[in-house]
Amino acid sequence: MVFFQCDYAEGCHPRILEKLTESNLLQSVGYGLDEHCENARSLIKKACGREDIDVHFLVGGTQTNITVISASLRPHQGVLSPETGHIACHETGAIEATGHKVLTLPSQDGKITAEQIETAWRDHWASSVHEHLVQPGMVYISFPTENGTLYSKEELTKISEACRRYKLPLFIDGARLGYGLTSPENDLTLPDIARLADVFYIGGTKCGAMIGEAVVICHPDIARDFRYVIKRHGGMLAKGRILGIQFEELFKDGLYFDICREANHLAYRIRDAFIRKGIPLFGASPTNQQFVQLTDEQIAWMDQRFLSEVWCAGEAGRTVIRFCTSWATTEKNVAALEKAIEEMP
Amino acid sequence: MVFFQCDYAEGCHPRILEKLTESNLLQSVGYGLDEHCENARSLIKKACGREDIDVHFLVGGTQTNITVISASLRPHQGVLSPETGHIACHETGAIEATGHKVLTLPSQDGKITAEQIETAWRDHWASSVHEHLVQPGMVYISFPTENGTLYSKEELTKISEACRRYKLPLFIDGARLGYGLTSPENDLTLPDIARLADVFYIGGTKCGAMIGEAVVICHPDIARDFRYVIKRHGGMLAKGRILGIQFEELFKDGLYFDICREANHLAYRIRDAFIRKGIPLFGASPTNQQFVQLTDEQIAWMDQRFLSEVWCAGEAGRTVIRFCTSWATTEKNVAALEKAIEEMP
Amino acid sequence: MVFFQCDYAEGCHPRILEKLTESNLLQSVGYGLDEHCENARSLIKKACGREDIDVHFLVGGTQTNITVISASLRPHQGVLSPETGHIACHETGAIEATGHKVLTLPSQDGKITAEQIETAWRDHWASSVHEHLVQPGMVYISFPTENGTLYSKEELTKISEACRRYKLPLFIDGARLGYGLTSPENDLTLPDIARLADVFYIGGTKCGAMIGEAVVICHPDIARDFRYVIKRHGGMLAKGRILGIQFEELFKDGLYFDICREANHLAYRIRDAFIRKGIPLFGASPTNQQFVQLTDEQIAWMDQRFLSEVWCAGEAGRTVIRFCTSWATTEKNVAALEKAIEEMP
Amino acid sequence: MVFFQCDYAEGCHPRILEKLTESNLLQSVGYGLDEHCENARSLIKKACGREDIDVHFLVGGTQTNITVISASLRPHQGVLSPETGHIACHETGAIEATGHKVLTLPSQDGKITAEQIETAWRDHWASSVHEHLVQPGMVYISFPTENGTLYSKEELTKISEACRRYKLPLFIDGARLGYGLTSPENDLTLPDIARLADVFYIGGTKCGAMIGEAVVICHPDIARDFRYVIKRHGGMLAKGRILGIQFEELFKDGLYFDICREANHLAYRIRDAFIRKGIPLFGASPTNQQFVQLTDEQIAWMDQRFLSEVWCAGEAGRTVIRFCTSWATTEKNVAALEKAIEEMP
Repeated sequence: MVFFQCDYAEGCHPRILEKLTESNLLQSVGYGLDEHCENARSLIKKACGREDIDVHFLVGGTQTNITVISASLRPHQGVLSPETGHIACHETGAIEATGHKVLTLPSQDGKITAEQIETAWRDHWASSVHEHLVQPGMVYISFPTENGTLYSKEELTKISEACRRYKLPLFIDGARLGYGLTSPENDLTLPDIARLADVFYIGGTKCGAMIGEAVVICHPDIARDFRYVIKRHGGMLAKGRILGIQFEELFKDGLYFDICREANHLAYRIRDAFIRKGIPLFGASPTNQQFVQLTDEQIAWMDQRFLSEVWCAGEAGRTVIRFCTSWATTEKNVAALEKAIEEMP
Repeated sequence: MVFFQCDYAEGCHPRILEKLTESNLLQSVGYGLDEHCENARSLIKKACGREDIDVHFLVGGTQTNITVISASLRPHQGVLSPETGHIACHETGAIEATGHKVLTLPSQDGKITAEQIETAWRDHWASSVHEHLVQPGMVYISFPTENGTLYSKEELTKISEACRRYKLPLFIDGARLGYGLTSPENDLTLPDIARLADVFYIGGTKCGAMIGEAVVICHPDIARDFRYVIKRHGGMLAKGRILGIQFEELFKDGLYFDICREANHLAYRIRDAFIRKGIPLFGASPTNQQFVQLTDEQIAWMDQRFLSEVWCAGEAGRTVIRFCTSWATTEKNVAALEKAIEEMP
Repeated sequence: MVFFQCDYAEGCHPRILEKLTESNLLQSVGYGLDEHCENARSLIKKACGREDIDVHFLVGGTQTNITVISASLRPHQGVLSPETGHIACHETGAIEATGHKVLTLPSQDGKITAEQIETAWRDHWASSVHEHLVQPGMVYISFPTENGTLYSKEELTKISEACRRYKLPLFIDGARLGYGLTSPENDLTLPDIARLADVFYIGGTKCGAMIGEAVVICHPDIARDFRYVIKRHGGMLAKGRILGIQFEELFKDGLYFDICREANHLAYRIRDAFIRKGIPLFGASPTNQQFVQLTDEQIAWMDQRFLSEVWCAGEAGRTVIRFCTSWATTEKNVAALEKAIEEMP
Repeated sequence: MVFFQCDYAEGCHPRILEKLTESNLLQSVGYGLDEHCENARSLIKKACGREDIDVHFLVGGTQTNITVISASLRPHQGVLSPETGHIACHETGAIEATGHKVLTLPSQDGKITAEQIETAWRDHWASSVHEHLVQPGMVYISFPTENGTLYSKEELTKISEACRRYKLPLFIDGARLGYGLTSPENDLTLPDIARLADVFYIGGTKCGAMIGEAVVICHPDIARDFRYVIKRHGGMLAKGRILGIQFEELFKDGLYFDICREANHLAYRIRDAFIRKGIPLFGASPTNQQFVQLTDEQIAWMDQRFLSEVWCAGEAGRTVIRFCTSWATTEKNVAALEKAIEEMP
């Protein structure tokens, strides 16, 4: 059966495996201080258009979120997040495990607004008992969001301005950053992200790497002693070069963007097939995750042919189902899915 | 320059890379529930001679220690450890970050005794203010130890008996387990370990894998909900199969043991060369780490030829230096080191 | 100006001060092991109608909540709570500081239902990614709630049954327990509470004591090593007898209940005065806290005469204001407030 | 039986009880913002000779240590402490519960030196793997120490200078500050303490108060948002005025110092009686705790007459026993103890 249920069902882009094989027996120092990591750092700084940033490589997303948030907050502070944010929903309380509350803001489409941040901030300080409340200490958003949606340059600029006005570091979870930046509907560049965020990460695991996320720290207060915080949370990889090699390969000639762009293209073909069939979408996602509302009969029929993921309850008895593409999705499998959608009851 | 400073300077055993390449485009479910992980679990259970154990795959050692210890203790309990234990010394307070104190016991050679555990337990409960003290809640030891030494079957049996008498789960850090089990001076088998410990891990990173440690849980109280605890500490790898493949390959025909045995053999050649030269050893290590006491002049001379690691201050103005072999160490490099030792001032 | 804004504006019931004075120079052992604490424990066990329970004395409510919840959960578990619960809203993330998420359930009136608990439990286990979610590990409710409302015997019995069915310890925050048990609308007794809850506390601070809350533990798993957990969270009072004396006096002849009953009586007089005036209530509270919806003009007028507390936004431009009585509220002050309500614009 | 085993066996100085009684029915706002707390703050600032400090009132010592240390450190930092420090020994891992390691320094008499701090700091930064170690982030000492000893002005000045050189906040645990400041061997004043420390506390519980410790914060980084941190750790007393009244009374005319001075005087009488009897002391304590080395026979004989506390093993089969005086110790009881010492076998 063909998988469309997530964007991490395969290993990694073949070029990375080749590089791992080629360099396998060369010796290097550990803990991310090797040449591959250094080179990957340079490539990422160049892609971000800034030299005054720190780049660290971690293994996975939850680990990255723990480490960044823990490094950024004082004990009594919490992190503002859309209620749909990965840290609020799907990390088994990993943020709370570091002693911090996730302060959720309502969201329909995975996004929040600068106004919501401002209101949360003002409401906190307006309270006569604010010392009895968790103080908002930073803002977490995802780009693209967990719903596949994107912030526009205008929206993100306003959020960034609000964050700086209130001295709330802005952290962008870029687990699927590549899919966001290469979406035809996106008007943000990587240098924009590096300018507007205080810290963000460039997702590897879901964008072509075997493992790995690259944390980019733009704010010196968060950068200070960051390697200690990585180690404290068990995220310091002994053979750090494995991570360096992934990002070296992904960033040396734009591979990261090329493979994500293609995955978006295939995702639109799936979306369009559902639209042609008259299936209601669940939100409008301009990236590699597509959410459609199917009947039970349609789900049963589809489940015999393709693996997809149940997302949540939809309208009128339908269920929201997620179909994902990735750097590894083939044109052949998408064509087969298009045909199946057409034939679906 | 040739590296002898650690056992994680290279990538991984070539057979693992081949397997990663071969399986790269096959699709599998995430989070360690795939066929490779299942197969690796079966192989490990078989090697342990027990079916009633749980096996989980994690990325690195500190992460594994955090997860196991956090899953085993109640809040007010601490973990007894030799003062030389990795959790006590080299993990940036990762255990304390989970809220638990490391209760250290004196050790010269990296080992502790059943008597020390008994005394610590009795002293605790004999105190009239025991509720003002951290309660010993489990025992952590390493096999081999951080000093390269081994527990004999008799010693480990006594420790295990003491632990069971006092209901203290026994956790064995096996970051270098392969080197310990294949040492000519060792009289313990993997089934012995699985019988005497309540939880332990089979180190991959330092024993041939690219990444990965296999946690073996023998006690049902620790096993319960363990996957939640993994996720909570950021250790749930999306592409879990990467870890499964490593251990599948290492355990399908004894590769794990073969490569560690050979590394020990090469380590003895290095040790013997130092002995022939009249260099005082720092403890007697029967495994892949060798500790020798060199003069400043000798260190300066050696540093121009080989990378080794400064360990601690030695006797009579000498410094303790560590030389490690690994699955990747070549006979040719060892021969060159032997020659250098002979020629050293 | 007379205070009606909270129930902790005065010191303590005069009989407690007399007892503190009388016993002041007698010597006793520390940390809650003295005769006063022992005697208070016996009195509370008797009032609860159970001998097989543990009683501990702590200083304040947040401290009590931290200690009980931390002692009850494994690391990956969270505590289900109404979204209005004190632990969810007004404790500066104290629960999260112990590593646990507060899992909130919607509530209009401060209460939740057995059905909500069942649904939360089933939804958790029905999820295909439940290990990525915080596992519900216990239930927290308040009696009376933060809104002044009460659970009926039938409601609490159903909640208790649901909790026991799913092995979720039920924790009742009784910061204002006395006002709840003596409400004319209440049909629960202290022995009912001690039978239906797994752990609860009898609030002292808001019910006549100077400081102090009495934790009653009915479940042996929570009771085990509880004194360690108290000390670990800084809650072990050196001069524990101070707490023992408070509860000794409050429980030796029913003083606790007498003073709370009278406070409820005075609260109804205030409520009735507002009703007579045609002021819309905010919920129907049968206890010592009364919530009314006033216009800005009315608030301004009242603020010049009495101190009350702004609660939240109300309907049609009104604001919800809280008026509290306590054991210390005088008939004279209530009469003055009644008169003011009548004259209010 | 008469108690000499600790300095918290009685209630509080009678003048405090009178004040509590006198003010009992007056209404005041909660959480330490009332007039009594404000007045006590002014008195303490005046006694410290500084206006630019913050004063907060907490209930007990462990709670105070948690709150101060948690407010001062970043996650990866630990607190340097003598191995005899209260936070290292007798707080059930309360500091570790906030995620921080206590980094212990050897001590014979409860004190550490500026040199030890400097060495710890240099060793940390000299390590090639310092990011794998807990970073020293502050220094904790006690005045007087747990052994009753005192730092001289010269010693404390050097420690303070070392701390400031390395930007390590200096925290002085003053649980028994009064006994230290009024010792005839002391050459430090309260303004000296307030000038040399970055944060310290003036112990109430062991120095005449019923409950309460006054935290004095001299460094603005620690002062920022400190009330949030108090609340987060369950230390925000609803009826804060109870604490304010204690310190108001103790500091309005020097009562705090007068009663501690007298307790020291009585402790020397006990010490001198033991010296006359030829009993070896355990260290030389110039404050209210006296440590003597008794034989088993002497202990058995004494135990029938007075309650004292077993401290640790002494020399030549003897056991170290602690005798404490306090503000409540009577001349009559000391005379009886003197006589008993003389008659002791």
